[in-house]
Order: sequence, then structure tokens, then C-alpha cells
Amino acid sequence: TVANPTAKAAVDMAVWDVIGQALGVSVTDLLGGFTDRMATSHMVGFDEPAAMVAEAEEMRERYGITTFKVKVGRRPIDADVAVCRALREGLGPDAVLYVDGNRGWTPAEAARALRQMDDLDLAFAEELCPADDVIGRRWLVEHSPIPMFADESVPGPAEVTREVLAGAATGISIKTARTGYTRSHRILGQAEGMGVDVVLGNQIDGQIGSLCALAFGAAFERMSSRPGELCNFLLMADDLLAEPLVITDGTLRVREAPGTGVVIDDEKLARYRTDR
Amino acid sequence: TVANPTAKAAVDMAVWDVIGQALGVSVTDLLGGFTDRMATSHMVGFDEPAAMVAEAEEMRERYGITTFKVKVGRRPIDADVAVCRALREGLGPDAVLYVDGNRGWTPAEAARALRQMDDLDLAFAEELCPADDVIGRRWLVEHSPIPMFADESVPGPAEVTREVLAGAATGISIKTARTGYTRSHRILGQAEGMGVDVVLGNQIDGQIGSLCALAFGAAFERMSSRPGELCNFLLMADDLLAEPLVITDGTLRVREAPGTGVVIDDEKLARYRTDR
Repeated sequence: TVANPTAKAAVDMAVWDVIGQALGVSVTDLLGGFTDRMATSHMVGFDEPAAMVAEAEEMRERYGITTFKVKVGRRPIDADVAVCRALREGLGPDAVLYVDGNRGWTPAEAARALRQMDDLDLAFAEELCPADDVIGRRWLVEHSPIPMFADESVPGPAEVTREVLAGAATGISIKTARTGYTRSHRILGQAEGMGVDVVLGNQIDGQIGSLCALAFGAAFERMSSRPGELCNFLLMADDLLAEPLVITDGTLRVREAPGTGVVIDDEKLARYRTDR
Repeated sequence: TVANPTAKAAVDMAVWDVIGQALGVSVTDLLGGFTDRMATSHMVGFDEPAAMVAEAEEMRERYGITTFKVKVGRRPIDADVAVCRALREGLGPDAVLYVDGNRGWTPAEAARALRQMDDLDLAFAEELCPADDVIGRRWLVEHSPIPMFADESVPGPAEVTREVLAGAATGISIKTARTGYTRSHRILGQAEGMGVDVVLGNQIDGQIGSLCALAFGAAFERMSSRPGELCNFLLMADDLLAEPLVITDGTLRVREAPGTGVVIDDEKLARYRTDR
């Protein structure tokens, strides 16, 4: 069947989980075995500057997280620029900040915002404007002082090639929820060969999805070279994973178990399932 | 250490072999598990046309091989053109023929040869002229009626990107003797994502190297979509593999064993080793 990448990705990861369990090996080791942990970033959602700084400070204090993804893309650009400035001032020079526009700005707005934030030492920017602004986005990337990442516009290998060759991105977000382990591994090889930067992204995964993504990211040196987007599960009131994920010093550990290490809480599954 | 890719590839495949043995799984299954066999092509070496046709006919009769790689690149081009024409006439329309120039021709010579062989239904051409003929090679690929593969000019992922983006190749040869399993797998992901054709190449491997290459090729759909170059070992008088490889119906079978399935003949190893 065409499309349905997320359903296929779930099946793909489940199959890898079974293979790992059958062999008594973690999928991290099966895939590449680079390390056993990964730093996580935290996504700071839209709010007033002071509230966003307070949220980031709490995450740093409570979990040791020092990398923050800041949602931008609102109009006019001033609100987001003010937030980024407040975060840099509030968190100091050691925090790593990057922005994600989710295609909210035009290339002109994005360029103006980047210029106004030029002194904020942003690590990179993600999907500031739509991929269909073909010429504008190429111009933006050409003139951007920081790396420009593609996410929604690169759901598969061919899109990666198209966006990168079009000069519309210099880095990509790889999401196991979108391309499973098999295709994510291929895309990673592609990115590596083409000299394209990568970040481990998140589809607002719960703990199961986060653990699956973590198992992939820790398997590869290049994939774990930047903190992954692994803690969106903190927004959720409950989860199906039997033993909760724990963030210590900003880091999540791969489960010491065969496969992905996912163990479902049967009682919660019975409570939350919607198919009966 | 820099360079020494072949030594590193051997170590990489040996490590995969050990992992497979430890898990009780073939490396073909560990890598992707697409199939358990692969068709092989045969390389026809330089000789008089009649002798080369006789060699190809013997390989077809004896082993069922129907794909032939023809070495070209001699000067003047007439000798090679005559050989290809004799092979097509001798073997009939069902044989698959492709040519490998090993950088022997200038772009002008290569273009002239391709024009003269236009009616011979060649599947593709490999490394007809040097990669350092940058503009000439790009022109050749642009005007070639058949796919143009790179081999010596793409020993690693970055070279693949450079040659493909330069328009100097539309396909690549992947050799496990050169990039082991780990890097070959990455390059395959890259080729797939970029829409680049692939063929499993051979470094005049003995049976051990051929079995290792076969184990890789059979793991992936795209890698086994063309016959691999797997039978150069037929040229050798003896080998270190305990149980010889057998070609039936033009096909080699992956060993039904954990790891690569390589078992060394200790007596022969003692006889042939040169380090003492």
C-alpha cells in the first residue's frame, strides 16, 4: 500500500523488537551499538517570554536538560524574537537554543527574524518557511548564517535528496515514528554520504515512541551527536510503558533488555484502548 | 588511521561474522535478509573475439551464467567493439552484456565506441574514462544512451556524492572488499535515497571474499536486482575456503550458517600463509 508511513514505521519497529528479543540483543546493538544513552532536548511551546523562560529553567533544574527547541513562526516576528532573546538572557550562554518555525514564516520574515536574532548564538533553525516556497527557501538557506534543517518536507529518502540538492536545507530531522528503523537507517546513511547534518526528531511521541527513537539514536555516532527530541512525553498525564522513562542529567538511557525494551502496562492498555 | 580501506573492510566483515556466530544468525539476515541467493555475472578478460566468445559460451554451458562483463578500454577502440559485437552475435539477444573500461578511454573514444555499439543492447558501462577528465566525463554521461557506472572513482560515500552530483555517473559499484558491511550498507542507503543504480562489484576476490560479498548482496532487494560480480574465484587454482563455492543455474547460494558462513581450511592456510 502507498503512504501510511507512520503505521508502517510502527510495524517495522515492532518487527525489529521481535528480532532483538529472539536474538537476546537490544535493537541499539543490532543497528550499530554506538552508545547506551542519549541527551535530550526540550521543546518550549508558545507562551509569553517570561513563562517560556520559566519552563526552560524548570526543565534544566529538574532534569538537567540544557538544549531547548523554541517554537517560532508567529506573526509578527517580534513575539518570537523576544522569546528567543529572553531565553538566551535567562539561560545564559551555555544553553543550546534552536528554533522551529513549522513553516510559519515567509522567507522574508524568516530572514528578518534571523537577522534580529543574529547575536543569540542559535544552533540551527528548522522548517522556518514552506518547502513550496522553492526559490525563497533556497535564497534563505543561501544567506542564513546558521544551518537550516528540514523536517516535514523530508518524510522520505527521495525528499531528502530533492530538498538538499535544491539547496533548501543543510540538515534533516530523522524520526523513527515516520520511517521506522529500516528506512531511518537508510536515510542516515544517505545523510552521512551527502554530508547532511541530522537531528533525531519527535512526533509528540509518548514514552513508547520515545524509547523506540532513543534506541535508534544511541546506535549511531552521527545520530547521537546532537541531543535528540526525546522528552515530549513529559507533557502527558499517563502512558502505556510499564516502567516510566527517567531523565537524569539531561540524558535518557537505552533499556538494558533485548529488542527495544518496550514493556506494555496491560492494565493501562485495557483502560485506554479505543478499539472495543 | 587514514586509508587502508581494504584492511578495515576485512576487519569489519570479520566482526559481523563474529556477531552473526554469537547470535546464531547469518549476516545476510542480520543486514536485511531479502533472499538466500544471488545471480552472478562473469568477467570476460581481454583476448581475441573468438576466444572471448568461447569463454563466455563455456561459462554459460557449465555454470548457467548469462550475464557477462566485458573488459574494454584498449586502443584503438576497434578491437573492443569487435569483441562486443562477436559476443552479442555468439550469445544471442538473451545474454546480458555490460562493459568496463577501467578508465582506458578518453571521453571522445568512449563516445565513439558507444555509438558503434549502439545496436548491441549493452546494459550499462563502467568507468570508461578517468574521473579526473571532469568535464569530458560529464559530457559523456549526459550523452550516453546507457547508464554509466562509477567504480574506482567512488571508493567511499563522499566520492559517491561528488561523482553523482557532478553528473559523472548514474550508477555505482559497491564492493564489500572496499567498504565492508557497515560502510557498504550506508552507501547502499545513500544510493537508494539519491536514486542511484548499484551493482555488487568484485576486487578479484577469492572464494572467501566472494562468499562475503554474496552475503551482503543477498541481504538487500536493490543490491540483488542485478547479478553480482561473484565468480572471479573460478580463475584461481586453489582457495582457503574449506567447502568450495558452487555455481548452479548461474546462481550462488548464501551459506546456511551463522555469520558469513566462512570456514577456513586450516591445512591450506598453513601451506599458503606467507607471514612465517
